[in-house]
Amino acid sequence: MLDKVKTDKPNAYDWIGTRPVRPDGVDKVTGRARFGADLAMPGQLVGKVLRSPHPHARIRSIDVRAAAALAGVKAIVTADDFPDQAAQLYAAGEQTVDYRDMVRNVMAREKALYEGHAVAAVAATSASIAKRALRLIRVDYEVLPHVIDPVAAMKPDAPLLHEDLITVGVEPRPKGPSNVAKHIEIGHGDITAGFRQADLVLERSFTTKPVHQGYIEPHAVVASVSEDGQADVWVTTQGHWMVRAMCARLLGWDIGKVRVTASEIGGGFGGKTVVYLEPVALALAKKARRPVKMVMTREEVFLASGPTSGAHVRVKVGVRKDGVIIAAEAEMAYQAGAFAGSPVGAGAMCAFAPYDIEHVKVVGYDVVTNRPKVAAYRAPGAPIAEFAVESVVDELAQKLGFDPIEFRLKNAAKQGTKAAYGPKFGPIGLIETLELAKAHEHWKTPLGPNQGRGVASGFWFNIGGDTSVSLQLNEDGTFSLTAGTPDIGGLRASLLMMAAEELGVNLDRIRVQIGDTGQLGYNMLTGGSRSTFSSGMATVEAARELKREACKRAAKLWELPEDAVEYRKGTVRPTGPNAGKHTPMALRDIAGIAGKTGGPIAGYARLNAQGAAPSFATHIADVEVDPETGKVMVIRYTAIQDAGRAIHPSYVEGQYQGGVAQGIGWALNEEYIYGPDGKLQNPGFLDYRVPVASDLPMIDTVIVEVPNPRHPYGVRGVGETPIVPPLAAVANAVANATGVRFPDLPMSPPRVLAALDEARSQGAAKM
Amino acid sequence: MLDKVKTDKPNAYDWIGTRPVRPDGVDKVTGRARFGADLAMPGQLVGKVLRSPHPHARIRSIDVRAAAALAGVKAIVTADDFPDQAAQLYAAGEQTVDYRDMVRNVMAREKALYEGHAVAAVAATSASIAKRALRLIRVDYEVLPHVIDPVAAMKPDAPLLHEDLITVGVEPRPKGPSNVAKHIEIGHGDITAGFRQADLVLERSFTTKPVHQGYIEPHAVVASVSEDGQADVWVTTQGHWMVRAMCARLLGWDIGKVRVTASEIGGGFGGKTVVYLEPVALALAKKARRPVKMVMTREEVFLASGPTSGAHVRVKVGVRKDGVIIAAEAEMAYQAGAFAGSPVGAGAMCAFAPYDIEHVKVVGYDVVTNRPKVAAYRAPGAPIAEFAVESVVDELAQKLGFDPIEFRLKNAAKQGTKAAYGPKFGPIGLIETLELAKAHEHWKTPLGPNQGRGVASGFWFNIGGDTSVSLQLNEDGTFSLTAGTPDIGGLRASLLMMAAEELGVNLDRIRVQIGDTGQLGYNMLTGGSRSTFSSGMATVEAARELKREACKRAAKLWELPEDAVEYRKGTVRPTGPNAGKHTPMALRDIAGIAGKTGGPIAGYARLNAQGAAPSFATHIADVEVDPETGKVMVIRYTAIQDAGRAIHPSYVEGQYQGGVAQGIGWALNEEYIYGPDGKLQNPGFLDYRVPVASDLPMIDTVIVEVPNPRHPYGVRGVGETPIVPPLAAVANAVANATGVRFPDLPMSPPRVLAALDEARSQGAAKM
Repeated sequence: MLDKVKTDKPNAYDWIGTRPVRPDGVDKVTGRARFGADLAMPGQLVGKVLRSPHPHARIRSIDVRAAAALAGVKAIVTADDFPDQAAQLYAAGEQTVDYRDMVRNVMAREKALYEGHAVAAVAATSASIAKRALRLIRVDYEVLPHVIDPVAAMKPDAPLLHEDLITVGVEPRPKGPSNVAKHIEIGHGDITAGFRQADLVLERSFTTKPVHQGYIEPHAVVASVSEDGQADVWVTTQGHWMVRAMCARLLGWDIGKVRVTASEIGGGFGGKTVVYLEPVALALAKKARRPVKMVMTREEVFLASGPTSGAHVRVKVGVRKDGVIIAAEAEMAYQAGAFAGSPVGAGAMCAFAPYDIEHVKVVGYDVVTNRPKVAAYRAPGAPIAEFAVESVVDELAQKLGFDPIEFRLKNAAKQGTKAAYGPKFGPIGLIETLELAKAHEHWKTPLGPNQGRGVASGFWFNIGGDTSVSLQLNEDGTFSLTAGTPDIGGLRASLLMMAAEELGVNLDRIRVQIGDTGQLGYNMLTGGSRSTFSSGMATVEAARELKREACKRAAKLWELPEDAVEYRKGTVRPTGPNAGKHTPMALRDIAGIAGKTGGPIAGYARLNAQGAAPSFATHIADVEVDPETGKVMVIRYTAIQDAGRAIHPSYVEGQYQGGVAQGIGWALNEEYIYGPDGKLQNPGFLDYRVPVASDLPMIDTVIVEVPNPRHPYGVRGVGETPIVPPLAAVANAVANATGVRFPDLPMSPPRVLAALDEARSQGAAKM
Repeated sequence: MLDKVKTDKPNAYDWIGTRPVRPDGVDKVTGRARFGADLAMPGQLVGKVLRSPHPHARIRSIDVRAAAALAGVKAIVTADDFPDQAAQLYAAGEQTVDYRDMVRNVMAREKALYEGHAVAAVAATSASIAKRALRLIRVDYEVLPHVIDPVAAMKPDAPLLHEDLITVGVEPRPKGPSNVAKHIEIGHGDITAGFRQADLVLERSFTTKPVHQGYIEPHAVVASVSEDGQADVWVTTQGHWMVRAMCARLLGWDIGKVRVTASEIGGGFGGKTVVYLEPVALALAKKARRPVKMVMTREEVFLASGPTSGAHVRVKVGVRKDGVIIAAEAEMAYQAGAFAGSPVGAGAMCAFAPYDIEHVKVVGYDVVTNRPKVAAYRAPGAPIAEFAVESVVDELAQKLGFDPIEFRLKNAAKQGTKAAYGPKFGPIGLIETLELAKAHEHWKTPLGPNQGRGVASGFWFNIGGDTSVSLQLNEDGTFSLTAGTPDIGGLRASLLMMAAEELGVNLDRIRVQIGDTGQLGYNMLTGGSRSTFSSGMATVEAARELKREACKRAAKLWELPEDAVEYRKGTVRPTGPNAGKHTPMALRDIAGIAGKTGGPIAGYARLNAQGAAPSFATHIADVEVDPETGKVMVIRYTAIQDAGRAIHPSYVEGQYQGGVAQGIGWALNEEYIYGPDGKLQNPGFLDYRVPVASDLPMIDTVIVEVPNPRHPYGVRGVGETPIVPPLAAVANAVANATGVRFPDLPMSPPRVLAALDEARSQGAAKM
């Protein structure tokens, strides 16, 4: 597992690339770490949400009188407690949200749009009283016809979710409403001309199901609001500034009045990038004049928090005889759930990103359906689109008699390639991952009976954005570093290492913490694979400011010009003609007398991190298919990915492995199962089957390092790309094992068995 | 009460000098504010301290085996758990502390030096188990003779507290040990020549008793230490950076490993500027591997936390016939408690500070005794010294037939006066307070039978020091301001107002919070009357940096040079030749697109605040003495003091009133009563009598404003000076009523009655 390939000079650094003990580890294994539900405020109430039992219903009236009269009930809120919003967008990383929709998702207003949609909420002195109160609330529903599937929802006679939803992105703009929120189109070249040049054109259609991020920790929040409007929120989230902005907006409060502290987070994967309970808890707390704690049950997490989209994707690829992909086209309909905003845009942009294609066109539709509003999920939209493209690419290689890796190498994007989504790539590591896959022992190891091998590549953009970091030099020469992006996958470790590297000091001299929204400048959320990149960049900037300040102080003491002092590994010393004139001073000595030279020494960075660079991966999957049951076991897996620079390789490997595990679940088992009544039949981990340890092989990883030239340590961001290739890698392996292609996910045993049986009846199966 | 005299141009400001609702108020009156004992950490243990029953005893051995064996006991610590310390000094504001002594005060090592001295501590699953465990600890004491009074302790045959304590400040240095820790001498001129020029010389001796700060909230702390040494502390304190530094030092840990959060504080007055329970809780938490909460009982607060010194003071003043004080001398012995460090230095410096005297000399002794180590108490040392001096000044005026205010005016320090403690005064407001006293209706109102009136002036230095503040501009144009000095007396209100003034925005746009030690740069504690001055100066600097940054961003948008944009009242606009070329932008618009112009907008200040300036006061007290019981009632009181600038006059008035209330308690009732066994007989508020509402008149206040030219808003610091004059003002009033001078405090009924009876027997009493 601990293979590591450095394409860069080894041992250039003291800390970067080493594997120290994780600074967040002890608190987590001892149970000290406090997650969303682990805070109790004195006098706190329990908040519970009443949810719609119908997938689509007009709310005629809500009668809360009996509930309000129940002893122990301290507050009840409905949509009336939230001011209506204009449709202004809030940009949060890779996603944008519409406040008009958001206020309706947080609390159903005119209509309940999915089973589980919040309709009212109660704060009471105990959970049992709160639940009793929910049962006393009378909602008069007018049940409406519903639609679950995105293609069905696009039909003209489909039940309309929003009577005022006019598709954007189409000219001329449609006159009437539909369930298609957005039409997008990207690409370059002349797609028709392109396909004319092709010797082989393959066109296939695919479907994927909505899958949930499956974070272990459900949404949880504790909120308190003082009578003078000063609000405090403790919450498990990927972005507490995001929570602050959204709550303030939804409640009509000043942002400055709301202080949000991020708890430790038990997984998010994109699912904790929006608000559900938070504004409700605040509204209840204000009304009740007591703190309110709300924790979702697992059922509520499935019913009412965002999974990612299910989708229909059609892919058409044209290849010349020499193996060059000359034209590629895709059309994709992503369901957004009850409100616009599927990741179809990102899906469309990612679809063909690993390839250098002259003529390319992608059309996407964002389609609303009577399901929970989707949320971001690790590389939002990309796994779906790239599953379809990588399946077609695999089949093309097979048809043309190419080795699938060679075929990809022939067409792979490289520095200078104009990506389908617009920009020209800088230095990227796709070719390196393919070469390493080709050379890997895994690729050459013979397979056994009923086994197959698949390969697939994957891409994610990675992002930067607004970031603040503060770094304090303490009186004894130790440091306190504060970042504002919640630590989901090792952020504290990587910031610690970059700070230690930059300062030239031992790791144990620095303690890192995640600051609250009051004490630090704005930070975009942890998502988009931005935190190690952006907060790392800010950490380096803060450390450099601190070093300059330390030199300035020494220059003052020594009565030298500022530029006559240099910083080297925790000491300051005279340089140039003054070198040797004064004994170098350790930072602790400078720190100890900071007051005498002007006050505390610190470095602060506030920046909009620019220069994020994509990370490419190539994965190899081996599967064994049980010909009798259709059960697919992944028996070997190797994930090869460009990290730019792996600050702490163990965490990077953990990201690779985690993404693969989730991708395997998506490929093989996970799905939302709806009955004809529009109700979810498997809202729990017993029936919604995420992979457990016994379902997975050891996932091997290879870290490629093609440094990002725009980051001081070459960081790209690694968290999202690993979930992109597994869907196709596993599907291609299953095809390799069975001789049958599986365009519809998940490849669960009943579906695989049925397809095998059909293929066998036609003599097309290999088993 | 709400009289206000502005010597400065009125209405020059939008916010400074107004009286908005206090931002810390609602949480305090609703019970939401969380004080030291209000935090519960999951799994926390209860810590309790075993204290010495003897005022002086050698500790032969401590046997904790039986206690450790008790079910529910999770950790026991004794002095062995704290590394011994060298005698290095830690400078914390006006006080310095010796770590060698501190580690012994926190946990007795070779000897127990006062009744209540901590000897061991236990952490257990409940308070009752912890208490039972304390009873099971066997301490083998060798009881030693003790000494309580400082003059007794100075005698050659007095019991020695520290066998190695050699007086410092005497040349040649004594060879043998004594209880005199320090000898100081300050002054200028030729005191012998001065007295020769005097026409009248008066010499008097005074004593004061130790008095406690009497904060309502006892010391309380919750501490947690992770297995990898990351420590978190929640504590009621005047300075959490001080707690961090002291705990790290006493435990031998890195400062950066310890994160301290200051709770709301229920009074400190100097008493929460050192550590008692904090390092013990940390040591227990580390050993028990669970959080530990410790809260002192009131009895423990009296026995084991620092009151201020009791003292003996001799004052000799020589006056010319024309009323000019030509020479003044004082000798003062302050008891320090069990370890060196009484405020005799500050007392000596303050003694004659209100006067312009040609020849002056003050000698002081710092004397250890078998009592709790003293801590700072509001203007540490000054009330004692100035009580003595102002009593003598009053008697001199009387003897010379001068009006006491006229006499003071004749000798008052003013700009250019060389203070007895060294520096030349800048602009100061003593004369203004005297003139206002003279003109005040109170001074002219006739007195009734058995009533008397007294006047006294007072002085305190005020200090600056290391300070950090951060100011964030939020996305909607609101602000988050973080300071690091605990808000004891309205700090959040005054910083809020200075920030609003500087930014030209409404108060409700800014929320102020007190940052923890991890998230903000170093801050000296709240004490010395430094917080509004220093954190205010830092707030202004941070606001100015933020405004410059906002102009820079607008310049970038408008493509103008940076200096072509100006900030005015929450907007930025082109200026000079470009004025009118662009529509001014509100800060919220600049804030909303901060990411596009370079990232979050913030201002950070880290400075060593220079330019603190003294505050002088003159108080008038009316008393009525019951000739039959000796009970003194203060029936009217007016406190006139120079605030420099009163940012929020109501808080300033509150400081004046609070200082007077405490000074009246000191003058009339408060004292530590020791039996011949060296044990405190009144460790509780029933027997240690602080003034309650029915003991006090409405305390009228007059705010004088002679701005401090070195603070952007003229702030001086107001918290300490008000406790200085009351002792003498009340004593002079009692002398005026009775014809009897009271050189010994407190003037409690039995003492007053005895003195009256004696004076009556000599025909010297007026009643």
